[in-house]
Amino acid sequence: MFDPVDHPHRRFNPLKGEWVLVSPHRAKRPWQGQQETADRSVRAAHDPDCYLCAGNKRVTGETNPDYANTFVFTNDFAALMTDTPEAPASADPLFQAQSARGTSRVICFSPDHSKSLPELSLDAIGHVIETWQSQSAELGQTYPWVQVFENKGAMMGCSNPHPHGQIWANSFLPNEAAAEQRSQAAYFAEHGRPLLLDYVQREIADGARTVVETEHWLAVVPYWAAWPFETLLLPKEHVRRITDLTAEQKADLAIALKKLTSRYDNLFQCSFPYSMGWHGAPFDGEENEHWQLHAHFYPPLLRSATVRKFMVGYEMLAESQRDLTAEQAADRLRALSDIHFREASE
Amino acid sequence: MFDPVDHPHRRFNPLKGEWVLVSPHRAKRPWQGQQETADRSVRAAHDPDCYLCAGNKRVTGETNPDYANTFVFTNDFAALMTDTPEAPASADPLFQAQSARGTSRVICFSPDHSKSLPELSLDAIGHVIETWQSQSAELGQTYPWVQVFENKGAMMGCSNPHPHGQIWANSFLPNEAAAEQRSQAAYFAEHGRPLLLDYVQREIADGARTVVETEHWLAVVPYWAAWPFETLLLPKEHVRRITDLTAEQKADLAIALKKLTSRYDNLFQCSFPYSMGWHGAPFDGEENEHWQLHAHFYPPLLRSATVRKFMVGYEMLAESQRDLTAEQAADRLRALSDIHFREASE
Ligand SMILES: O=P(O)(O)O[C@H]1O[C@H](CO)[C@@H](O)[C@H](O)[C@H]1O
Ligand SMILES: O=P(O)(O)O[C@H]1O[C@H](CO)[C@@H](O)[C@H](O)[C@H]1O
Repeated sequence: MFDPVDHPHRRFNPLKGEWVLVSPHRAKRPWQGQQETADRSVRAAHDPDCYLCAGNKRVTGETNPDYANTFVFTNDFAALMTDTPEAPASADPLFQAQSARGTSRVICFSPDHSKSLPELSLDAIGHVIETWQSQSAELGQTYPWVQVFENKGAMMGCSNPHPHGQIWANSFLPNEAAAEQRSQAAYFAEHGRPLLLDYVQREIADGARTVVETEHWLAVVPYWAAWPFETLLLPKEHVRRITDLTAEQKADLAIALKKLTSRYDNLFQCSFPYSMGWHGAPFDGEENEHWQLHAHFYPPLLRSATVRKFMVGYEMLAESQRDLTAEQAADRLRALSDIHFREASE
Repeated sequence: MFDPVDHPHRRFNPLKGEWVLVSPHRAKRPWQGQQETADRSVRAAHDPDCYLCAGNKRVTGETNPDYANTFVFTNDFAALMTDTPEAPASADPLFQAQSARGTSRVICFSPDHSKSLPELSLDAIGHVIETWQSQSAELGQTYPWVQVFENKGAMMGCSNPHPHGQIWANSFLPNEAAAEQRSQAAYFAEHGRPLLLDYVQREIADGARTVVETEHWLAVVPYWAAWPFETLLLPKEHVRRITDLTAEQKADLAIALKKLTSRYDNLFQCSFPYSMGWHGAPFDGEENEHWQLHAHFYPPLLRSATVRKFMVGYEMLAESQRDLTAEQAADRLRALSDIHFREASE
């Protein structure tokens, strides 16, 4: 008899239209490979050498204002420019290029250098959400896609522990957005309901993959998760964009974010690295009834604060592969406190 | 005027059907983030503690034979099993699972613990190619997809410097294979020729992205490369599978592999990490006229032996992004010697 806890199987990610290979028995193998450095540092609230702290100088020579909540500036080495000229058209299907316009901004989440997202107050997290909203609203007037994201931890390429995220606006729909656009539109055409609204309701009813449930939000390890402790955070009601949240949904999102990221830090009692970001309906002037707002959290750790999952040979050349089931990962995260270990010990 | 060396743009990968964002001006930014450990170790030809060396014991208690060339065994913690029962069918499009069958094997490339692929003799590399061929032929009788790959270096999750690779056989077409299958079939239907055969001929004529050219093989930084020094290695003639190579193509492949991987090691004078692997027509009993055999090399390093490219927030949530053009990367690799720095100094 087939048992998902013992038998390798594939699960389908209906958002990306891709499969993931689940090999749950594989977590038993010993690990002799690369060890990462766990971030268990306790930092000062202000670091005179940090280019994101209030009042400090950046490489450009500019001085950061004495900000009280969040602070946004254009990335000093932006990957996109606002005024790129058009690329010439090519008739050759093997050599297709197009010009890309946009901008990259950095958001400091708080002047407090010592705290990451889960350690910020609900009020401070509220300011981060409002900044995500106002930036999306502003950039959405010019660009169809506004990618809000955070790389947290050195393991995720982040070079400064000061709590911060990024916003890259694009004159085009990037791959991941285009894939989610296609999948959600196709599902809506067939079922007459948004894919992720059906999904959130089924997950609420089931509970096996739930990590955090608040009044308006649900965080689950999705059925098709690729990263060991990947989660999907989404509103329980139909919301298309981060700019469309009601005041109640917004206040409740601060609670959901704090609980989810606290559980993450509690898992290995470290500052838990991840890349996270928001996906919502493009700013393209369309109805986009099929879109449901959501955040993806992609954390690399697998076994401990120092042993990560490597998505390498087989994964890059064939298919993402995971070493525990989504339900096992959700069980682990659910068994933890949703109060951050540092706040609990205060 | 648009200039690809100064202006951010996107290029289309016709094999995957995806775009990549190219931000060439971005390589100028300073790097203060995580540093990796460069592998510049000089090792003994036999390590009594290595579980891949000839005559040594593995975790299972089995003893490796006293092999002279290559040695293949089933992975002691295989991600796939040959006898997984069928998973029950689900009518719910949001919860789709299927049983996965297959096997995972390890190939030791050589009994010499001290040498990686570029440092092996042409004769020894020839034995590796023959093993890839015989394994593919054998497993292709049972499984439609045989993924041959190598994870090289600790950065790519490899826990043992002994030269080795892997072979995972699958009862299904994994995502990457399915995407290449679709793209190549669509191109063939429209143009009546294999996509990669047209591509290889255009790259030979152009030369701007060529890294290694031998009598029968071409290695280029593909126009749509995502990783900084990614390459695509392919035969100049139409070849569907690794099992179909002529004796001349096979002998010449050893030369091409040695030159390509020597240039890689020479770039930062270290053992250059990568994941590489072969894609060829599935073993599905079809003609597969549209398929062209090729190997992808995905190396993570960007600036030096210790600074890698992080494919993180924007890349995971939106689109792969690179910091130099394919042509710039090819120029760098072409400017190096194709004799390995250790062999040159002998
Ligand atoms: O070589 P190993 O130890 O089997 O494992 C390595 O390669 C596998 C296939 O790409 C990955 O799934 C693992 O995450 C990686 O650590
Ligand atoms: O935060 P940074 O320094 O801009 O850069 C980091 O995030 C970017 C967006 O995901 C990546 O392209 C870089 O590779 C990574 O190092």
